[in-house]
Amino acid sequence: MKQNIYDNNTFFRKYQEIRAREHNYNILLEQPNFLALLPSLKNKIVLDIGCGVGDFAAYCLKLGAKYVTGIDISSNMIAHAKKHHVHDNLFFEQVAFEEMTVPAETIDFIGSSLAFHYIADFQLLIKKISTALCEGGVLLFSIEHPIVSANMGKDNWITTAEGNLLYFAIDNYQLEGLRTQHWLVDNVVKYHRTLSTIVNTLIEHGLQIEKMVEPIPTKDAVSNLQNLNREFRRPSFLIIRAKKQILTKM
Amino acid sequence: MKQNIYDNNTFFRKYQEIRAREHNYNILLEQPNFLALLPSLKNKIVLDIGCGVGDFAAYCLKLGAKYVTGIDISSNMIAHAKKHHVHDNLFFEQVAFEEMTVPAETIDFIGSSLAFHYIADFQLLIKKISTALCEGGVLLFSIEHPIVSANMGKDNWITTAEGNLLYFAIDNYQLEGLRTQHWLVDNVVKYHRTLSTIVNTLIEHGLQIEKMVEPIPTKDAVSNLQNLNREFRRPSFLIIRAKKQILTKM
Repeated sequence: MKQNIYDNNTFFRKYQEIRAREHNYNILLEQPNFLALLPSLKNKIVLDIGCGVGDFAAYCLKLGAKYVTGIDISSNMIAHAKKHHVHDNLFFEQVAFEEMTVPAETIDFIGSSLAFHYIADFQLLIKKISTALCEGGVLLFSIEHPIVSANMGKDNWITTAEGNLLYFAIDNYQLEGLRTQHWLVDNVVKYHRTLSTIVNTLIEHGLQIEKMVEPIPTKDAVSNLQNLNREFRRPSFLIIRAKKQILTKM
Repeated sequence: MKQNIYDNNTFFRKYQEIRAREHNYNILLEQPNFLALLPSLKNKIVLDIGCGVGDFAAYCLKLGAKYVTGIDISSNMIAHAKKHHVHDNLFFEQVAFEEMTVPAETIDFIGSSLAFHYIADFQLLIKKISTALCEGGVLLFSIEHPIVSANMGKDNWITTAEGNLLYFAIDNYQLEGLRTQHWLVDNVVKYHRTLSTIVNTLIEHGLQIEKMVEPIPTKDAVSNLQNLNREFRRPSFLIIRAKKQILTKM
């Protein structure tokens, strides 16, 4: 079942508050590492899965993409995106990727920032992505790191009585599937996959891994947001770039 | 600096005691998953890095390999291997792989079971492996999982006062390098690498990942060794099969 948490108005308001902060995990950690792995988008057909408010989709156009489509399950997000980013070659659609019909081998680049952990059927997701990509096309995505997503929604930093961090607790790593947690509101639904499931699913669908990043914050980032120091102790995010293999005709 | 812990006689005796047990982590968990990923070895030239007592090297010969060389830094191990496995096409040598001269593109398959975490220079290791492999050649290796190797030699299962496991503690994940721990004897030296370092090093040296396994025990295995139940909570091992890319001439 697909959860559309971003159309929960309490959630959306709180989410916008976090994102409006100058110093947050996205701006300081995930986005710079994600964007550093972008291939050339010059004249490319681009799809952004889980586009949110459309900033990344608009950015792809600035980088020279021919057409960019951003999709998101949330009407709040899509309304915001359509309002703030208007361009003839930029399209936003409220739809779940699982339900979208994409003609085979029509897309050069698929990007997705911190959205895949909301999607229940990872096999179907990657199968559809692989089908949609042209040969040599690139998928770039970031997700919650499996070390973090493994846990059952507990706060997993173990502290002393004084509140000093001792270590991060991990559990249930091999039990894949639904995780319900409190993040801004109760009952946010996410899905945990092991690292090997993520990697093997890509490979089985002809997507060859080119780069894997577990982001580390810069000194500047840590000086702006002290909590980022924790990233040296365990990673929050996993970013993977993979390329659809070119089948050589023998 | 290379540590040759297996030539510490106290360590070697204790190690042999563990390995002699019918039910241990190697027999019940690591080996079945490692062997399941073997490519066809029919008429292949094989190198086993960290061959220990030579059982796997001898097994490769049984599977049809043409020549098998097993190397290990420990004279205890090599003496044992030479004594127990005698065959015209089976060779054992006491040498560290870093110091071994291997002609380029002469080996079809390189296997290594739970040895790479003893090697300090992972870049050099993988570079030498990639050079030694023929095009299309396969590397199969198992290592301590980065979730486990991250910690600084502490016992990382956190328990209640009654001794029940609460969770596994992880820390220092991004701080790669030396880990000194007590395992059978004091001051066993290992090296921690993050998952992304392992994956990216392979890719940068032309080794394309084909499969990644974080082994889960079977029901039978757990009934023989109860502690294996912990493997569902966090993985002990990581197994990777990678293939040296065939460079297509354009």
